[in-house]
Amino acid sequence: MRILITSGGTSEKIDDVRAITNHSSGKLGKAIAESFAKEDATIDLITTQLAVKPEGNIHYHYIESTADLEKTLKALMTANSYDAVIHSMAVSDFTPESSVTLEDLETAVATQPADLPQTLAEIANQRTEKKISSDTDHLVIVLKKNPKIISLIKKLQPQTILVGFKLLVDVPMIELLNVAKASLEKNQADFILANDLAEIDGEKHHGYLINRQHKVKEAQTKTEIAELIKKEVMKLEETR
Amino acid sequence: MRILITSGGTSEKIDDVRAITNHSSGKLGKAIAESFAKEDATIDLITTQLAVKPEGNIHYHYIESTADLEKTLKALMTANSYDAVIHSMAVSDFTPESSVTLEDLETAVATQPADLPQTLAEIANQRTEKKISSDTDHLVIVLKKNPKIISLIKKLQPQTILVGFKLLVDVPMIELLNVAKASLEKNQADFILANDLAEIDGEKHHGYLINRQHKVKEAQTKTEIAELIKKEVMKLEETR
Repeated sequence: MRILITSGGTSEKIDDVRAITNHSSGKLGKAIAESFAKEDATIDLITTQLAVKPEGNIHYHYIESTADLEKTLKALMTANSYDAVIHSMAVSDFTPESSVTLEDLETAVATQPADLPQTLAEIANQRTEKKISSDTDHLVIVLKKNPKIISLIKKLQPQTILVGFKLLVDVPMIELLNVAKASLEKNQADFILANDLAEIDGEKHHGYLINRQHKVKEAQTKTEIAELIKKEVMKLEETR
Repeated sequence: MRILITSGGTSEKIDDVRAITNHSSGKLGKAIAESFAKEDATIDLITTQLAVKPEGNIHYHYIESTADLEKTLKALMTANSYDAVIHSMAVSDFTPESSVTLEDLETAVATQPADLPQTLAEIANQRTEKKISSDTDHLVIVLKKNPKIISLIKKLQPQTILVGFKLLVDVPMIELLNVAKASLEKNQADFILANDLAEIDGEKHHGYLINRQHKVKEAQTKTEIAELIKKEVMKLEETR
């Protein structure tokens, strides 16, 4: 059994010293990797230097940004065939495109450009410093949307079992499950693990695993989530 | 001898899952703390969970944001008298004030408000979700300036020896030294350690230590910088 796991959170550079980071300790990804390692699975793990590292025989692939993740994921999924891809990494939806002062923004807006983000990027490019100066009261960062990494997985390998993750913050349970269901359909995932930041505290970690038949199974800790994912992935693999 | 050291990089929340982080491993702060620990100094270290930790008898004080740093620094400097404060932490100059879509920004600009940041903050506050939705092509983050933490230190304890840090990226040496000199005057620092990210690579770390007489001493590694700072601080302390 060969498994690809992503874990931790991406980090998108603003300049040479600042970045926008997605908070993720990597603890859930670690539990999942260790759970599959016990079954003697061959595991490729795409993660970051900052994320916690699982025990066991793991092949590490380090990344920082969403662009790195895309490149590494494509390379691995082109070279190897995976029984399952478990995409637990917290991926930045946006990446910084330009950083300007409020004065720059107001000037740009006053000229009524057809494409404001493009105009701001040109202003930012004219700046020669590699670190943004702090000589302004307000800084404006314009971010552009990143490609959705999860949507690439079934395009690269339609036969792989895909487990996606959906993290929301303090929403009603029914909303969480509906958003997870929508993500399942949109990305052709076989499972989505839906969880709410308000219900995560250390090892305590409430999660719902939703399958293609929209059946929902619950788990209460990171270890339980990891075991549940492993059990369901292996069960589905046996039927194939 | 009682020393206060700050180390690592601050992190400013955008929402419950994203933050703007200042990249700093804390390795230089670690070397400085270990250098003073060898002299049996009592050391308070303000740092982050992610920064590397020095060996020895250190009192830890954990923070995340610049606002946390300000609070902790004021509390410590009110409770204790320090022979020296060595402020090596990479502090965010800005903190997120509001996050809006490009459409929100264009709408706000069209109404020509007197105070654009305020208008954008109101738009952002009307949003109920705690995590920013990714249903927009461009996201705009407006950041406001943080208070300058280094400027507080001599106000709180005029007698303490203050060592500040100035990190620039790939600038001519004379510009680096001039910026460091200006920071020394502005913040009434006794020393500024000036360094350039382009000249830092692992343990190799080129630094200039500038004193009130504008004399400059050089060091080539993190350990050399730490020893130089310790030696100069102790020498200045003896003359008092």
